[in-house]
Amino acid sequence: METLSIGQYELIYNAFSFGFATLAAATFFFWLGIGQVKPQYKTALVVTGLVTFIAAYHYFRIGQSWNEAYVLADGAYVASEKTFNSAYRYVDWLLTVPLLLVELILVMSLTRSETVSRATKLGVLALIMVALGYPGEVSDSGSVRWIFGLLSMIPFLWIVYELYVGLGKAIESQPESARGLVRTARNVTVASWCFYPVVYFAGAIGLEGATATVVVEVGYTIADIVAKAGFGVLIFLIAMRKSEDSEAKETLTVPA
Amino acid sequence: METLSIGQYELIYNAFSFGFATLAAATFFFWLGIGQVKPQYKTALVVTGLVTFIAAYHYFRIGQSWNEAYVLADGAYVASEKTFNSAYRYVDWLLTVPLLLVELILVMSLTRSETVSRATKLGVLALIMVALGYPGEVSDSGSVRWIFGLLSMIPFLWIVYELYVGLGKAIESQPESARGLVRTARNVTVASWCFYPVVYFAGAIGLEGATATVVVEVGYTIADIVAKAGFGVLIFLIAMRKSEDSEAKETLTVPA
Repeated sequence: METLSIGQYELIYNAFSFGFATLAAATFFFWLGIGQVKPQYKTALVVTGLVTFIAAYHYFRIGQSWNEAYVLADGAYVASEKTFNSAYRYVDWLLTVPLLLVELILVMSLTRSETVSRATKLGVLALIMVALGYPGEVSDSGSVRWIFGLLSMIPFLWIVYELYVGLGKAIESQPESARGLVRTARNVTVASWCFYPVVYFAGAIGLEGATATVVVEVGYTIADIVAKAGFGVLIFLIAMRKSEDSEAKETLTVPA
Repeated sequence: METLSIGQYELIYNAFSFGFATLAAATFFFWLGIGQVKPQYKTALVVTGLVTFIAAYHYFRIGQSWNEAYVLADGAYVASEKTFNSAYRYVDWLLTVPLLLVELILVMSLTRSETVSRATKLGVLALIMVALGYPGEVSDSGSVRWIFGLLSMIPFLWIVYELYVGLGKAIESQPESARGLVRTARNVTVASWCFYPVVYFAGAIGLEGATATVVVEVGYTIADIVAKAGFGVLIFLIAMRKSEDSEAKETLTVPA
């Protein structure tokens, strides 16, 4: 663990606290919105809140672990006898990344069999993707980082393919009022996920020392907020839009 | 960090605890009221509670950090080896100040496109305003404090202009029973926000030492309570008034 300046240490600490506050607030936002959407979209909002709840818990723990991993000595933060537990991130992703894809499938309200098959396939791919990244993340060797990083790109690219090609037709048959938002949610998933390998490989291309620590920790935090809370707001808007839409249709078909 | 008398230290600590209790209680008040208002005002109350929830979290943390930043020695409080984390306030404002403006827009229930465009514009301006204040807040130099303070006044004045001129017409077309309250909420926003630059510049006009610390910490706490919990009560009253109003209208139009 590198020696950090007070500013670097505090920037990372405050990023973690910001992450906790944002993700906890997002959880309440999604769960309090459940009453406002039609029954077929309620589970999507429940799961959206689960993702931010799990992430908020982990950011709380990450902040504690960060706090314990350093001590102030001679105007700089040096490693204490406790190590920073970076496994919290991977435990988090193991749970939340598959659920993020499940959210998207649920809010589309496809047929039951299509929901199950697509959610299972995407969920399993996401699980493999996260699991393959971990050995590289904890390794001190640049080549091990590269190997597992590249292996982890295989399920990632498969997910991208599924989201664009496999899910493309289902997205185009969404109600018009929500179609653009569903497309945006799909694109935000892929775009925000691209951020993770960038941060991951920052460690592999030789970015080292205190700056690398700042890039990795702040980078992952921003990516988590966009991919979980930001993406969740899109899921909420899709659920609301589709609920209003079906309400409007019901009103139209009420017999005179 | 200045040496504080026991009374000064405790006054600030208790102000933080008061802030936590008030904001946490306000959160429950707003969220438990969601069931009492019409669907179109529910999201406004959800967001009102998010603001006080985020602020309550930060006051809890600020209190902890304050507690760790001082030790009692020879009948006075002197700085410990840990610094007081004043960034909690700015992290809080980054999240809550844009949301406060979103609350006001949401409870007005404008058209969808007007809601999106006004909330986005005001939210972004608020974000810039808070971000510009931070470099001045953490600087030891009075002139840096002035420069960033004055820069931050530009988006602030723009927001005031938007609230009075841009939103003026929309406010006048609110239902009569709620119009006065909406106007008051708008005025409370501007009036309570004026308090922040006063506290901020207290550091720049040469107010120094322990007295300055008391003015800044207690001042910001009072401003936060008025701008978040007090303002939120107005949003709640507007949502209730408008809900009753639309109920009354529905009763009137029920066929005999």
